[in-house]
Amino acid sequence: MGQNIYDVPEFFERYSRLRRSIEGLAGAPEWPSLRALVPDLHGRRVLDLGSGFGWFCRWARENGAAQVLGIDVSENMVERARSMTSDAKITYMNADLERVDLPSASFELAFSSLALHYIEDLSGLMAKVHGALVPTGQLVVSMEHPIYMAPSHPEWMVTADGRKTWPLDGYAIEGPRTTDWLTRGVVKRHRTIGTILSTVIRAGLTITHVEEWAPTDEQIAERPELAEERERPMFFLFAARRDR
Amino acid sequence: MGQNIYDVPEFFERYSRLRRSIEGLAGAPEWPSLRALVPDLHGRRVLDLGSGFGWFCRWARENGAAQVLGIDVSENMVERARSMTSDAKITYMNADLERVDLPSASFELAFSSLALHYIEDLSGLMAKVHGALVPTGQLVVSMEHPIYMAPSHPEWMVTADGRKTWPLDGYAIEGPRTTDWLTRGVVKRHRTIGTILSTVIRAGLTITHVEEWAPTDEQIAERPELAEERERPMFFLFAARRDR
Repeated sequence: MGQNIYDVPEFFERYSRLRRSIEGLAGAPEWPSLRALVPDLHGRRVLDLGSGFGWFCRWARENGAAQVLGIDVSENMVERARSMTSDAKITYMNADLERVDLPSASFELAFSSLALHYIEDLSGLMAKVHGALVPTGQLVVSMEHPIYMAPSHPEWMVTADGRKTWPLDGYAIEGPRTTDWLTRGVVKRHRTIGTILSTVIRAGLTITHVEEWAPTDEQIAERPELAEERERPMFFLFAARRDR
Repeated sequence: MGQNIYDVPEFFERYSRLRRSIEGLAGAPEWPSLRALVPDLHGRRVLDLGSGFGWFCRWARENGAAQVLGIDVSENMVERARSMTSDAKITYMNADLERVDLPSASFELAFSSLALHYIEDLSGLMAKVHGALVPTGQLVVSMEHPIYMAPSHPEWMVTADGRKTWPLDGYAIEGPRTTDWLTRGVVKRHRTIGTILSTVIRAGLTITHVEEWAPTDEQIAERPELAEERERPMFFLFAARRDR
């Protein structure tokens, strides 16, 4: 990972105040869709790539996982996650996903929420995930959607007649995207959906589900500001399985 | 198929004058990418869904296919395709893809170029394609990209500082999109990439490749007007295989 923005004090402090940081999974509108992709965890070993404050790791244990390994590049986040549990079956490791070695054929589920869009060598990481999963093991991912990430100016445009449109450009031009989110100069790695999925396939995984998250009517009734997520997708979700 | 726009005289006449109609595969900039997904055809049986003027059917025979069945809803196009070959191993059928019965386990390749975005019941068609393929048989598809199809106003916007952006909206809202292309009131069926790929998977096929076509530097040097295709994708390509 080229940048560890989460340990920049201003970023960490502001990130900690986000709804999803305070409320955990319940504060993340895409969580119900992501949860639907997670298989039964009873007795399973779970790997969380980019575990942040550890919300999913704790949820996995509450839902029957035998043991959980959470890895995050941010020392601050790992420290906070450790302070939130005394469960000996959860291990938090402070490491860079692009450099860490993963144990071989050791997990029934690899999970990753909103981390893969920071990864420079996705192909290398997917090869490691493939090796870390047991055969029939599953990968469940959410990441920032390429449509959300691609534009040179990723901000809504309002047309003369009041329509809100998302000014897409540069979609096919892969590489870094620098934006100001919570702090200046956050670097993400743009790839097309085609590249993301073909990379997963070439790593030896079988795609089992693809979804571009959009809010339900109930979610919009509760949080009207989510309506704009129907205009352009913010989150890209997929699941895959190790068949070979 | 709700609409057979290709047999509307004005549309057919104008369509016949497009570069891809006159030059065939060589006139379609996405063809090199699509061709790269087509397996070796020697001795294979090929199904072409939406065969149009029959360019791919003839190409398949020139590249060793044992027999080819092309199906198209347009009587005009089937008639034109028939007039362009005397090859007894190519059969053209004038039928609606949504209603036609396909022979069971009879093809090593199902191919479809720029037709599936007209299909209302994609799930039903994919089930038929699955049944028509032999085990290990492959599906190779190009279709209009959902980003291209979704917007309420699918036309470039030029910002004050001269950037060309694509005004995306309504991406998560699936259903008909009516545009004026060659004639008025052409109806296409918008689905997200997530829905398209998950539909293919649920039909029992394994996704083997996903690609959002973009021009190469060489293509842009030859046809500078293609440069805008890097800003937002026009064509969505994928390949899948019947494993079960």
